[in-house]
Amino acid sequence: MNKPGLIPDLIYVTGGARSGKSRFAERRADELAGGGQVTYLATAQAFDPEMTERIGRHRADRPKGWHTLEEPLNVPAALEGVQGVALLDCLSLWVSNLMLRGDSDAAIVQAAHDLIHVQGRRSGPLTVHPLIVVSNEVGLGIVPDNALARRYRDTLGWVNQAVAGASSEAWLAVSGLPMRLK
Amino acid sequence: MNKPGLIPDLIYVTGGARSGKSRFAERRADELAGGGQVTYLATAQAFDPEMTERIGRHRADRPKGWHTLEEPLNVPAALEGVQGVALLDCLSLWVSNLMLRGDSDAAIVQAAHDLIHVQGRRSGPLTVHPLIVVSNEVGLGIVPDNALARRYRDTLGWVNQAVAGASSEAWLAVSGLPMRLK
Amino acid sequence: MNKPGLIPDLIYVTGGARSGKSRFAERRADELAGGGQVTYLATAQAFDPEMTERIGRHRADRPKGWHTLEEPLNVPAALEGVQGVALLDCLSLWVSNLMLRGDSDAAIVQAAHDLIHVQGRRSGPLTVHPLIVVSNEVGLGIVPDNALARRYRDTLGWVNQAVAGASSEAWLAVSGLPMRLK
Repeated sequence: MNKPGLIPDLIYVTGGARSGKSRFAERRADELAGGGQVTYLATAQAFDPEMTERIGRHRADRPKGWHTLEEPLNVPAALEGVQGVALLDCLSLWVSNLMLRGDSDAAIVQAAHDLIHVQGRRSGPLTVHPLIVVSNEVGLGIVPDNALARRYRDTLGWVNQAVAGASSEAWLAVSGLPMRLK
Repeated sequence: MNKPGLIPDLIYVTGGARSGKSRFAERRADELAGGGQVTYLATAQAFDPEMTERIGRHRADRPKGWHTLEEPLNVPAALEGVQGVALLDCLSLWVSNLMLRGDSDAAIVQAAHDLIHVQGRRSGPLTVHPLIVVSNEVGLGIVPDNALARRYRDTLGWVNQAVAGASSEAWLAVSGLPMRLK
Repeated sequence: MNKPGLIPDLIYVTGGARSGKSRFAERRADELAGGGQVTYLATAQAFDPEMTERIGRHRADRPKGWHTLEEPLNVPAALEGVQGVALLDCLSLWVSNLMLRGDSDAAIVQAAHDLIHVQGRRSGPLTVHPLIVVSNEVGLGIVPDNALARRYRDTLGWVNQAVAGASSEAWLAVSGLPMRLK
C-alpha cells in the first residue's frame, strides 16, 4: 500500500502474455485521469502482419480521446513533455527495441533509470502526473536454448526490478485478475 | 473473498506445470462435497505413452467413489447433466483439443462462455452445484518461436480471463501453495 | 505467517529468472544472522564462460565474511555440519546436477526429503539454525518440445512442492518484489 500522503505517481503493472495487464493498466489510468485525457506512450513497432494486427486491436480497445505518442526508442525524452496521466505500454517491447538497435545491457538499464528520473521530476507533492508502466514477466519458463533470448530475459529482469523497486504501487496480473505486489 | 451470501459456485484454480493446482482443486472439491461424490470431468486424451502414464497417475491419486466423465470436446454439454460438485481438469487441455480439431479462436472463446453459462444455470441461491475449474498459466516465459504455440497461449489466455472473471473464487498455485486471487 | 512460537527454520524463496529471489534470500539470511556469519551452500557448477561469469557476479554481490561451501551433489550431507544460518542457492541447479549425474526422479525427490530431514534435526525449539532455500519456477511457459526439459520441470516441481510444503515461511519474488506464500 502507498504510505499516507504519498502520491501514486509511478505505478508498475506486470504479468504474462494475455494476462489482462494492459487492460488493468488502462482502467487504472482512466481512473487516475478521472475519465479525462491520458497520454498513451506506445513502444510497439509493427514489423509483421501479426504485430500490426495486435497493435490495431489494442488501439481500438482504448478510450476515444486518449492521445497516442509512438516512441519505440527514446521513451524518457517522450515522457518529459507529457502533462497529466501517462501510460507506457510496454517496458518489455522498449527493451527489445533497444537490444535490436544494438544497445549494451548497461545502456538499457541506464535508460530505465533515466525514465524513473524523468518521472521523479514530472510528479511531486503538489502536482499529480502519474505514470503507469506495463511490463512482462518472461523468466518463469524453462531456460531458453537461444543465447539472445537468455540475454533478453536477464536484461528485462534488471529493468523490471529497477522500475518496480522505484514504484509507489505495483501489480501482477494473473488470468485477468490483479494481485497487489506493493 | 466471496461477498456474504454469494454461493461459491464457480471456482477457478490456475498455476504452472507441477504447481499442485490439481491436488489443491481436488481437496477443495472434496471439502465442498463434504467427503461425498464428486464428478470429475476429464479432458485429457492419451495420444502417447507419456500422456497415458500421466492420466493413470492422476486417476490413481483421486479419491475412490468419485465419478469420472471423459469429455475432451463438448464440455458444456457434459456439465449440463451433472448434479453436485463437478471438477473440470483442465481448461488448458480442453482448449488444446478444440484447437487440434480445427476450431477458430472465436469459437473456442465462445465455448468457454457456454461453459460459464451452463454453470450459471446449474447453480443458484437455493441449490449448490459447485464447479471447480483447473487451468494452466503458460504466458510467463519467453515468446515461443512457434506460431501455433503463440496462438495457443493467446487463446488460452482469453479463455482463462473469461472463466477467472466470472468465478466467485480464484486461486494461483505456486510450488504447491495456493494464493488467493479473488 | 508463522504460527506464534514456531521457529522460522526452513524458509523457501522461489521466483523466475532475474526476479530478485537470490537477493531477497540473502537479505533474509543476513537479517536472521543479525549481520553475523552465514554459510552459503553453492550448488552451481561452471561448465561454460556464461556460467562462470554468473557465479562470479553472484559471489561478488555477497557480504564479506560469509562462508561459501561448494557442493553440487550431496547437499544434505554438506548441510549436516553447518552451524547457524545457512543459505542454499539453489534447489533448481541441485536438481539439474543430480539429473545430469543420472539419478532417477524418485532418487532426486528422496534427496529433497533428506534435505528437509537434516534441517529438521539441525533446528529445534531451543536452537535456531535457519535454512533459507532458493529455487526457481520453471513451469509457467509453454510445454517444452524437449523431453528432458519436460522431465526437469516435472521433477523440480515435485522437489519444490516438498520443500515449500515443509517450510515455515515461503516467498515468491516477482520483479524484485517479494510476495508471501505462507
